[in-house]
Amino acid sequence: MNMRDPRDPLVQPYITINGDRLWSRLMQLAQIGATQKGGVCRLALTELDRQARSLFVEWATALGCMIRIDAIGNIFARRAGTENHLPAIGTGSHIDTQPTGGKFDGNYGVLAGLEVIAALNDAGIRTRAPLEVCVWTNEEGSRFVPVMMGSGVYVDAFTLEHAWSAKDRDGISVKAALETIGFRGEAPASLSQGAPRFAAYFEAHIEQGPVLEAANKTIGVVSGALGQRWYDITITGMEAHAGPTPMQLRRDALLPAAALVQEVNRIALSHSPHGRGTVGHLQVHPSSRNVIPGQVKMTVDFRHPTDEGLSAMNEALQTWAQSQTNDKISVTVEQVVYYPPAPFDTALQAAIAESAQQRGYSFMPVVSGAGHDAVYVARTAPAAMIFIPCKDGISHNEIEDAEPAHIAAGAQVLLDAMLAQAEVVRP
Amino acid sequence: MNMRDPRDPLVQPYITINGDRLWSRLMQLAQIGATQKGGVCRLALTELDRQARSLFVEWATALGCMIRIDAIGNIFARRAGTENHLPAIGTGSHIDTQPTGGKFDGNYGVLAGLEVIAALNDAGIRTRAPLEVCVWTNEEGSRFVPVMMGSGVYVDAFTLEHAWSAKDRDGISVKAALETIGFRGEAPASLSQGAPRFAAYFEAHIEQGPVLEAANKTIGVVSGALGQRWYDITITGMEAHAGPTPMQLRRDALLPAAALVQEVNRIALSHSPHGRGTVGHLQVHPSSRNVIPGQVKMTVDFRHPTDEGLSAMNEALQTWAQSQTNDKISVTVEQVVYYPPAPFDTALQAAIAESAQQRGYSFMPVVSGAGHDAVYVARTAPAAMIFIPCKDGISHNEIEDAEPAHIAAGAQVLLDAMLAQAEVVRP
Repeated sequence: MNMRDPRDPLVQPYITINGDRLWSRLMQLAQIGATQKGGVCRLALTELDRQARSLFVEWATALGCMIRIDAIGNIFARRAGTENHLPAIGTGSHIDTQPTGGKFDGNYGVLAGLEVIAALNDAGIRTRAPLEVCVWTNEEGSRFVPVMMGSGVYVDAFTLEHAWSAKDRDGISVKAALETIGFRGEAPASLSQGAPRFAAYFEAHIEQGPVLEAANKTIGVVSGALGQRWYDITITGMEAHAGPTPMQLRRDALLPAAALVQEVNRIALSHSPHGRGTVGHLQVHPSSRNVIPGQVKMTVDFRHPTDEGLSAMNEALQTWAQSQTNDKISVTVEQVVYYPPAPFDTALQAAIAESAQQRGYSFMPVVSGAGHDAVYVARTAPAAMIFIPCKDGISHNEIEDAEPAHIAAGAQVLLDAMLAQAEVVRP
Repeated sequence: MNMRDPRDPLVQPYITINGDRLWSRLMQLAQIGATQKGGVCRLALTELDRQARSLFVEWATALGCMIRIDAIGNIFARRAGTENHLPAIGTGSHIDTQPTGGKFDGNYGVLAGLEVIAALNDAGIRTRAPLEVCVWTNEEGSRFVPVMMGSGVYVDAFTLEHAWSAKDRDGISVKAALETIGFRGEAPASLSQGAPRFAAYFEAHIEQGPVLEAANKTIGVVSGALGQRWYDITITGMEAHAGPTPMQLRRDALLPAAALVQEVNRIALSHSPHGRGTVGHLQVHPSSRNVIPGQVKMTVDFRHPTDEGLSAMNEALQTWAQSQTNDKISVTVEQVVYYPPAPFDTALQAAIAESAQQRGYSFMPVVSGAGHDAVYVARTAPAAMIFIPCKDGISHNEIEDAEPAHIAAGAQVLLDAMLAQAEVVRP
């Protein structure tokens, strides 16, 4: 008998999550830092974050979990298994938000994890491996940089000391903020310092994009996270008066900048379907209506699911920049960020797809264009993500919204997939 | 005998301006508001402007001129003729500067006019018509809008009351500033209120562009000022995350904005040689490197020597905007400024060219791409401008520079051309 099959008679009848309870917790958590427009402003390690963390700890404790807090403030709520020497099956996300964030980004993944535990409690189910629900510190990076701080320390992407020393605009360090809110824990924060590994890790999340909604699918089985290369570009010409300067004597920096906007788009389209290219920031100097621009500073953001694709996009950009440099115009390209593509574990993807199929939810493979804590965790453990649609693909916005039916479906798939990894123990 | 011929024996030997004296006055005036980088910061109607105006009045009075100050603060230094009922032959410019302006813009035209009078005094020459050197108030518009304020009131482009009520960033009105520095005069400021007309008007000015320098010519005979149409453009799409949003589902406002930058350039090039098109200001919203731009606000500045050309450029822009508007992108185009093309008087242009030829200065016809006080005066009297090269075509900049030989040549041509209009009186 295949122990990972949720049709296993041990799991019959299917263990069903309680969508109303999950929705109710989402709405309750969203009260902490609620904005007038229906969103949430709960920056990392603030008093509001403390309140939200405390509520999570209260809920998890009431569900019988043990709480562990590490040195970077990550919270782990552990439901014991029957064999507690086994590495845990993890899930979770974050509960800090953007300044004008929504109710679902991050919060959904954390509370879906709690709902998994609540549903297992209700059904009286025990698992062989322990389960852990994680709250990662400062995923958003709105108050402190780097983003995905808690999971980054965990996988040793950067050191605890580096994270601790990051300061907000008021000069308050992460370490000081952790101490102020009482969440600088004793547990080791990084794998290199002895933090435990996961046997498998899942993260449920709203898609933050329009693909599932456009395709009218409930569950996105995330195949991996796109690799990213970010650039700062400076194009320099010579500013001059728009009136007295004939066209042929100009050194207008905005003309090559406009060409680059189109070139970035062309490069991305030539790497369909998952190649992405964006010029999000473009600043003209001196930006006066009757002065020919002397300099343009702009950014380029390339994403692709493979390193080969990302490298090809990079080469196309560099070739373009060289072709534009002449005695009138200079172009400099500086790469400022590189995240490698992060494919997720295929067995875990299969478990997610299998649950969706058995539950009768429509599903499709998708990629994650953005970074998530699970992308870091995937460096050290089999990991996967479950996406559900969000209204109009809008996130990082107070009008971020998701349907209760999708919220419930994602949590159900999470339960099934986790249970398949943790193995149900015969009563 | 042609009385306007400077070869007339009455004018023999040629009356020669004193280039050293003119240069010396330019450097002396540039001390008032001098900046560390060698430029001048002397905003309109400030204490520094008062000092500069007082120095002008002192110099003009020492040359025997009568001073008239009108209600908007324009200063007219009049050298009497033998027939003072005749309308004056005018010249002049402005002595206010940009915040980081140079020594020559405006100041040159005023002091070249004073040098004409000084040279005539030295030579003991009297003219039939009186001569007037004008200092127009607030040409630059850096402190108070509208620009070309003094000459604009003079030709009734807008009312004295409108100009008086303009306020700077500190809430100080033009009227109050005029009173503070003691330059709110009694003379009527506008033609409609009785200000006198000119029989002819000249303005000597640095080119503020690269044409003369590139062609290695000393004198630019200005055929007229380009007409101008200025626009505010708003392109609206939808902001979204750069990561999770596939290329084909985007509504990126920067892509059509980039196309417009190129279209404006194409339109200008298709109206060679004098058509000009500039996108000087372009602002991306929200301007974050990993957010697809939801909106772009930008400006378009079109210039052309004929109204037909300017209208054709306008139609091309409107056609483009309509072609871009669809269910993903909207484009709005608002015209915010219109200055009609202003051709200068052909007889006065001929007088300038004739002087340059006889004096052995290289010369060529040029257009004025920018506005000048003479462009307003040209609405009410025969007018023309004399351009001289400026280094690298740079103006409105502290490094603005011009060669003493060119400074002298322009003043010499100004003298010859004015004298041809004013008519020398037999001793």
